[in-house]
Amino acid sequence: MKPVPSLSLLTRILALGASLILSGQAFAQSDPLPSWNDGAAKKAIVEFVQATTTQGSLKFVPPAERIATFDQDGTLWVEHPMYSQVMYCLERIPAVVKAKPDLAKVEPFKTVMSGNREAMAKLSMQDLLKIVAATLTGISVDEFNAEVKKWLETARDPRWKKPYTELTYLPMQEVLKYLRANGYKTYIVTGGGQDFVRVYAEQTYGIPPEQVVGTAGGTTYGYAKDGKPFLTKEPKLLLNDDKAGKPEGIHLMIGRRPVAAFGNSAGDQQMLEYAKAGDGARLAMLVLHDDAKREYAYGPAQGLPATKVGAFPQVLYDEAKKQGWTVISMKNDWKRVFVFD
Amino acid sequence: MKPVPSLSLLTRILALGASLILSGQAFAQSDPLPSWNDGAAKKAIVEFVQATTTQGSLKFVPPAERIATFDQDGTLWVEHPMYSQVMYCLERIPAVVKAKPDLAKVEPFKTVMSGNREAMAKLSMQDLLKIVAATLTGISVDEFNAEVKKWLETARDPRWKKPYTELTYLPMQEVLKYLRANGYKTYIVTGGGQDFVRVYAEQTYGIPPEQVVGTAGGTTYGYAKDGKPFLTKEPKLLLNDDKAGKPEGIHLMIGRRPVAAFGNSAGDQQMLEYAKAGDGARLAMLVLHDDAKREYAYGPAQGLPATKVGAFPQVLYDEAKKQGWTVISMKNDWKRVFVFD
Repeated sequence: MKPVPSLSLLTRILALGASLILSGQAFAQSDPLPSWNDGAAKKAIVEFVQATTTQGSLKFVPPAERIATFDQDGTLWVEHPMYSQVMYCLERIPAVVKAKPDLAKVEPFKTVMSGNREAMAKLSMQDLLKIVAATLTGISVDEFNAEVKKWLETARDPRWKKPYTELTYLPMQEVLKYLRANGYKTYIVTGGGQDFVRVYAEQTYGIPPEQVVGTAGGTTYGYAKDGKPFLTKEPKLLLNDDKAGKPEGIHLMIGRRPVAAFGNSAGDQQMLEYAKAGDGARLAMLVLHDDAKREYAYGPAQGLPATKVGAFPQVLYDEAKKQGWTVISMKNDWKRVFVFD
Repeated sequence: MKPVPSLSLLTRILALGASLILSGQAFAQSDPLPSWNDGAAKKAIVEFVQATTTQGSLKFVPPAERIATFDQDGTLWVEHPMYSQVMYCLERIPAVVKAKPDLAKVEPFKTVMSGNREAMAKLSMQDLLKIVAATLTGISVDEFNAEVKKWLETARDPRWKKPYTELTYLPMQEVLKYLRANGYKTYIVTGGGQDFVRVYAEQTYGIPPEQVVGTAGGTTYGYAKDGKPFLTKEPKLLLNDDKAGKPEGIHLMIGRRPVAAFGNSAGDQQMLEYAKAGDGARLAMLVLHDDAKREYAYGPAQGLPATKVGAFPQVLYDEAKKQGWTVISMKNDWKRVFVFD
């Protein structure tokens, strides 16, 4: 039997209505993307959202299928001059060496401990993997989360002298909120460490841990002396969430093809292809770092030499044109870059 | 500037209210678990939900942290006499052999093709793995999904002669809905194949693909002749989502510790331990198959010999008592077992 609505029930419904008005979100008619200049990029986003969420539209996407995926480094926040997670690993080495003093005499730890930035820049990929293994594995998941949290509170970006979590792009934050207000589930799909990004994604982007897909290692279940179970992070790679690993990771962790995908480098090409290859309306966008003044300009598409991070080669630019992906020019499409601008 | 509520806005709010009344869910005061008999199990569920969702309660759990995980086989639906996925694999062999006729002369395919149930029951674990690899891998994700969907439409359980997806436990469906109506995200955490369960979980349980954690293999990203990208299922195990693999899988796929967990066998012990070991209110429950008449009675806790599936050993029963897990007796706690009862 259906319950009969009582007076108190109607009061609650009106209260619910009032809170919707107060939040001002659900029915707001104002510009959802105030930090964007009018142009092809902003138009593509707004038209996509309207087409996929308007009942009766030929391009309507049912709410359950509204999945949008975002690369993180260089797409949602600054990746230059070095990924923040690499900074974390390097800055964590002294504590690792303190716990195991013998490491101080062994490379690459010796170089990192020297503080010589020039020598550190020359470390090989194999050296970096040793640093990653020493700083990201061999500890419990809870300890790791606590360490990253602590680091984020004090670490500062070298240029703006601000916490990394404040260096997110305001226009992209607006896109995340705009999509969510329209029933999209927003995911981060990052080449960075899944556990690392999960520590701050909820507070920084409003994206809960279960919606962060990243490069992931295995864990091992075990018991502490008091019988309490815990998970230890192992140096066993389960998912290399970069390039072809991005659609593979999306299948593993989400199990649906995204309707919209956002990236900024060659590492995102396959994710964008995968999203775009589905039926119906699709949105694929690439952030181009062409704003040397407010942020950075880098990569061959800028006529600049390739860099270690966030490579945006000419071939990706050509691919974007060919595949109908929209390139976002930081310089021209964004009114503001950071919330503190 | 906040938008001023217009008359049409108020109309929409009232319409929203009306639809809430019609759905009868959000504010229903009636019994959320009508298929449960009054008893310790039902009481544990209701008290847990009330304690964790009542603002101001000492055991209040913020909405973002409301994660509940459910084993599938034997917890949400019938697993006897054989897991439905094993049935799928066996019934898929003729098509596999038709595509590769040489397999007909090779074991274990020869035995499966003979249709001799007695011989099939004697197949070794290694044989079963060959069957699994031949039927679950080497095809594209899209083809696999289509095959499973097709099979589910025609396959029938040997006892009730009904589609497997109708053999879900009504009382557990009520628990899923009750938890979701109270802001819980419900997940399946199954030893079964993640891709297999995802095909029907949304329609059968209201659980979307991204909330199904299961035994998972790798995929490989590639391109079809027309340039369209696709994923191929590979015989590479990424996650063995059973026993200790369940908390490991939960960490990988969800990244939060569940507040409530439901299982029915030794394969669920670690998931229940992991959920229970967190701070605050916790709910851990085990379904005991003790209803030979309406479903099945099996396992040593029944004084019956151990079976291939759904082992509920005495040691698990003892562990439940020791750890404060609630055992659900199908016979005594459930008024109805199936929707068609």
